[in-house]
Amino acid sequence: MPIDPKSPIEVTAFGWVPDFARGQVRDLRVRWALEELGMAYRTRLLMGARPASYYREQPWGQVPVFKEGPVELFECGAIALHIAEKDETLLPASEVGRKRAIAWLFAALNSIDGPAMAYVSAAFFHADQSWSAGASAAFGEQLAQRLARLGDWLGDKEWLEDRFTVGDLMMVATIRGPAILERAPDNVVAYVQRGEARPAFQRALAAQLADFASEPT
Amino acid sequence: MPIDPKSPIEVTAFGWVPDFARGQVRDLRVRWALEELGMAYRTRLLMGARPASYYREQPWGQVPVFKEGPVELFECGAIALHIAEKDETLLPASEVGRKRAIAWLFAALNSIDGPAMAYVSAAFFHADQSWSAGASAAFGEQLAQRLARLGDWLGDKEWLEDRFTVGDLMMVATIRGPAILERAPDNVVAYVQRGEARPAFQRALAAQLADFASEPT
Repeated sequence: MPIDPKSPIEVTAFGWVPDFARGQVRDLRVRWALEELGMAYRTRLLMGARPASYYREQPWGQVPVFKEGPVELFECGAIALHIAEKDETLLPASEVGRKRAIAWLFAALNSIDGPAMAYVSAAFFHADQSWSAGASAAFGEQLAQRLARLGDWLGDKEWLEDRFTVGDLMMVATIRGPAILERAPDNVVAYVQRGEARPAFQRALAAQLADFASEPT
Repeated sequence: MPIDPKSPIEVTAFGWVPDFARGQVRDLRVRWALEELGMAYRTRLLMGARPASYYREQPWGQVPVFKEGPVELFECGAIALHIAEKDETLLPASEVGRKRAIAWLFAALNSIDGPAMAYVSAAFFHADQSWSAGASAAFGEQLAQRLARLGDWLGDKEWLEDRFTVGDLMMVATIRGPAILERAPDNVVAYVQRGEARPAFQRALAAQLADFASEPT
């Protein structure tokens, strides 16, 4: 779905990030969910320092912010759920299926993203610190154990439950970074590749990359 | 609400944990949500090593697991949302109010719990490691910044939005640990105290503590 400046849905994203973050910023997850539903959106690109007022939209100063009429949301999990609730594309109609999908949505953001970000922070964001190697080893092992459990659950299934849901979307988006995925078992790597092969993901990724300016603004 | 062995709702909890974890294990959050709605539940207490089959209920081997008829859930966020959806006690009826509450539910579990657990892990779980002090300082600063932003949002409000919701329940439960709270500004500390003063929280806490055996099983 092309970006449509007249869409009633607005997604806030960054107008520039360093190369290593391109394709990883969390508005990608919201774009992907919208693409799965075939919904157009417009973007608001943040350039330079955030004004103080932005923290009233996004308490941590991050992206994405999502606006659709009176609904103004932050947190990619809440936004993804809001989008998923629009139809059955990402959320089964049955109560049991719906709740299981939501369980995996939270699992990605709490049980996987926490250990993943701790490891990435120790290993990369603090690579110049004397404690980085020791902390990276410990947090990396914790992440690998969590990803091994995910692989145990997945087995030879295509998706986490019996069809692709918003839980898969968020899980794939959470673990697809190279530094995280190299800690994962083979079946989890293949699962991520299935997710990334979806046309909606490819459209979302291309749209995020196209929005970055070449120089910091 | 007393625990009722005949309740159709089952919450899985640990039958023993070390002293420092008592009152912090995550089934507390589910018990609290149920208490806010005045719903009885029965408990299943895990004793000793988890059987391999338990990982089919809870992929990470943790607690809580929640069962209510055909709905079987893991992840405290998904369970809290499932309970909150039963009436308006924890989730406003209006779409905007409902979505904002869900945004804070995700905020607690993704934007706050991640940095909090990274800090606690570095400072306490790995206190005997040479890298602990350096990593604790860095992760502690990151946590303090996040909690300061939470305080900026909260200001002099009683709750995160205009009434107590499942988002407040999860936020209070996420940051009430002493090691986390000592990094928070005064208004966040007072906010946590308001949450902990709720009778439903007190009943949930007492019920969790009462379920622990005095010795490892």
